[in-house]
Amino acid sequence: MSIHKGVKVTNEQVYQLDREYVFHSWSTQGQLNPMVIAGAKGCKLWDYQGHEYLDFSSQLVNVNIGYQHPKVVEAIRAQASELVTIAPAMANRARGEAAKRIIAHAPKGFKKVFFANAGADSNENAIRMARVFTGRSKILSGYRSYHGNTGSAIVATGDPRRIPNEYATGHVHFFQPYLYRSEFHSETEEQECERALAHLRRVIELEGPEAIAGLLLETIPGTAGILMPPAGYLKGVQEICNEFGIVMILDEVMAGFGRTGEWFALDGFDVTPDLITFAKGVNAGYVPAGGVIISEKISDFFNDHYFPGGLTYSGHPLAMAAIVATIDAMEEEKVVENAAMIGQEVIAPQLADLQKKHAMIGEVRGKGVFWAVELVGDPDKQTPLDADTMVAIKAGLIDKGMLPFVAGNRIHIVPPCVVTAEEVHLGMDYIDQVLTKYAI
Amino acid sequence: MSIHKGVKVTNEQVYQLDREYVFHSWSTQGQLNPMVIAGAKGCKLWDYQGHEYLDFSSQLVNVNIGYQHPKVVEAIRAQASELVTIAPAMANRARGEAAKRIIAHAPKGFKKVFFANAGADSNENAIRMARVFTGRSKILSGYRSYHGNTGSAIVATGDPRRIPNEYATGHVHFFQPYLYRSEFHSETEEQECERALAHLRRVIELEGPEAIAGLLLETIPGTAGILMPPAGYLKGVQEICNEFGIVMILDEVMAGFGRTGEWFALDGFDVTPDLITFAKGVNAGYVPAGGVIISEKISDFFNDHYFPGGLTYSGHPLAMAAIVATIDAMEEEKVVENAAMIGQEVIAPQLADLQKKHAMIGEVRGKGVFWAVELVGDPDKQTPLDADTMVAIKAGLIDKGMLPFVAGNRIHIVPPCVVTAEEVHLGMDYIDQVLTKYAI
Ligand SMILES: Cc1ncc(COP(=O)(O)O)c(C=O)c1O
Ligand SMILES: Cc1ncc(COP(=O)(O)O)c(C=O)c1O
Repeated sequence: MSIHKGVKVTNEQVYQLDREYVFHSWSTQGQLNPMVIAGAKGCKLWDYQGHEYLDFSSQLVNVNIGYQHPKVVEAIRAQASELVTIAPAMANRARGEAAKRIIAHAPKGFKKVFFANAGADSNENAIRMARVFTGRSKILSGYRSYHGNTGSAIVATGDPRRIPNEYATGHVHFFQPYLYRSEFHSETEEQECERALAHLRRVIELEGPEAIAGLLLETIPGTAGILMPPAGYLKGVQEICNEFGIVMILDEVMAGFGRTGEWFALDGFDVTPDLITFAKGVNAGYVPAGGVIISEKISDFFNDHYFPGGLTYSGHPLAMAAIVATIDAMEEEKVVENAAMIGQEVIAPQLADLQKKHAMIGEVRGKGVFWAVELVGDPDKQTPLDADTMVAIKAGLIDKGMLPFVAGNRIHIVPPCVVTAEEVHLGMDYIDQVLTKYAI
Repeated sequence: MSIHKGVKVTNEQVYQLDREYVFHSWSTQGQLNPMVIAGAKGCKLWDYQGHEYLDFSSQLVNVNIGYQHPKVVEAIRAQASELVTIAPAMANRARGEAAKRIIAHAPKGFKKVFFANAGADSNENAIRMARVFTGRSKILSGYRSYHGNTGSAIVATGDPRRIPNEYATGHVHFFQPYLYRSEFHSETEEQECERALAHLRRVIELEGPEAIAGLLLETIPGTAGILMPPAGYLKGVQEICNEFGIVMILDEVMAGFGRTGEWFALDGFDVTPDLITFAKGVNAGYVPAGGVIISEKISDFFNDHYFPGGLTYSGHPLAMAAIVATIDAMEEEKVVENAAMIGQEVIAPQLADLQKKHAMIGEVRGKGVFWAVELVGDPDKQTPLDADTMVAIKAGLIDKGMLPFVAGNRIHIVPPCVVTAEEVHLGMDYIDQVLTKYAI
């Protein structure tokens, strides 16, 4: 219970209000049991009864700078007082400053930013740019991906959420490298890389290169399992795209803005795409925002070609002020460096220890604060751990006081980029205890 | 010039920053000349040089409560300090309160709200609900419409912005009533209504009723020209939808939340759809938000059927706090009543006078603060006024100190719902002067 503007608020009240009036994403409404959250700070959340949770999820892997960062909150408050909203057609200071900062961290040769409201519509607009730029229609993307819930983004998505939503045309999917569960019968990283590239080339040849506008790929597929691409894969994809005049789009909605211990996940690879999409971490989701970072080649093209896309809240000042403050604070407080350090010095060794101890850990992979722990029922056959045990493990972690991110047979270790070594230790200890309880 | 946190900001600086880094909606980037806006209050905006503008646009017809409403600004500031962001899966107080208030103003029998980020993804999710609910695939919508820029929303759109974006399947368009430029050779409102309904029925018969999931219609088509449906049309559409088991979706993104002098434009007609989509006016665009208001029938269906859609920022707390404060302030300050009064007592008579005076005004139509003035080059043939003169008229109005909303051969009179009679008089006087200058 807590006092809000003189009114007592309880978990029960907020829960009832939610169940009565709020329709939820990706669910069967009759089966919901939402957690109540009253407040949060840094890597901690709490409810109205004073239960605290250590956050290992960053919500939907978006609160990169942690909860309630004082400088970002203050920037939002100040922008609200100055000019809370203005249409995209106007020139707005916060919008220009946000775009400038994003370009400053993008690879060399990127020129302009088109702002959208979130990840899905960022991908929609990148796909649109690729189609208008090439005059072609098909879009290639990976089976192991999630790109958003709107018309084209959901069909570009490879994961099963696509299947009830297949109402957009021109989408073709291919297999990405994933050595632990190789589609290519590979035994080494090099083999997996080489075979995945050969497979992509075959798909392009058979779909017709002259019909393919763009290739959309998460730099590191996130929800699909934080699948680290083997050395050389992304570079190889870029070469194939260049060879056939296909626009290469890297989706950095989840992987970007500090998550991997770099500003962009692509910084960790030798690759330069034509378009980069972003959302989430750019302002930690404090205000809905996303966008497309546009290379010089494509930006120049649209200087004298009409761009047939747009939205009411493109470059919304409140979202833009949050981007400016988030990027500035991440620079000043070395948040990206912290994520890199935590990944290398804390998470990597601890997960290696856990893996030695628990037979049910089939593979661990990742970098920065972007890791997957893949659980198996049978280590030799690599059978994914059954759904019931995964549900029990998730409940066990929440019970200990952790907010975990569980996807399929995996626990994703995705705390805010500001997480401390102590917090990681604590969370890993919870995981250790719960995995011990359900040991195979 | 103005001082911002000790730094001098000029129009020129903000303009240059925009042109260097910001990619704009619906345009050829090389031809842009964005207006710089520094601040705003009520129905006034200004730049850094002290030029003031009277707003007759509500930006993109979204700032219904006017600029910088102190209670809404304060609610955003307070929510930013309390809990700026949380995932959709959690129960959140502001989200429940926002949904409750929206339901309180919706027609009887509406139960729950699914929140999205804006108009486009609200329509995407309503279309998704219709398809899952019916198990059918086709979506009918009007040629005279705009429904958003994402995959399905842009193909549901009827206006020419659809054409370079036709990559979604299952969309069919029909003609709506528009007596001034009748597609049905009608001479009276009754005829236009009857013929438009007969046409819709024929389209449904020929497309196959058993294939049609939903019918998506702006209650009053906005960008297409504020086309007031004749008495009986929407009721007739509802009857046809019911007869064939088609989900009726009314898009109230532009027409809703006070614009027509009612909470929803549909309140002005004898009609109850199955789903209502909204965005813009719900919080005046202070924080990006939109959503779907769901009838009991469809809400109940999803109690035991999975809903295959969702988004990271569904029900974003900052947007929700802005909704709560906007609706509360609109109630307390009788903003909707003001819009109704201004429409009836001020705009309607003044436009009638203007029409008598200016031969180039072919038709005026609307209600509340939602009016179109249709300009013609030849009153007898009703030829739309040529594009060059429209550009000159727009420039002339800006020059006088007004921010107009010009679409095709029309001036839309769409000030904030809080506009005063004096402000309307002033704006109408500007229009009078400029039309006099370009008289045919
Ligand atoms: C890689 C990736 N792309 C796009 C999206 C869609 O973002 P949003 O939910 O903001 O539309 C997500 C969301 O999880 C994502 O992880
Ligand atoms: C009737 C209608 N529906 C949908 C939209 C799309 O809204 P958004 O630009 O927020 O996606 C608009 C925008 O003008 C609209 O007028």
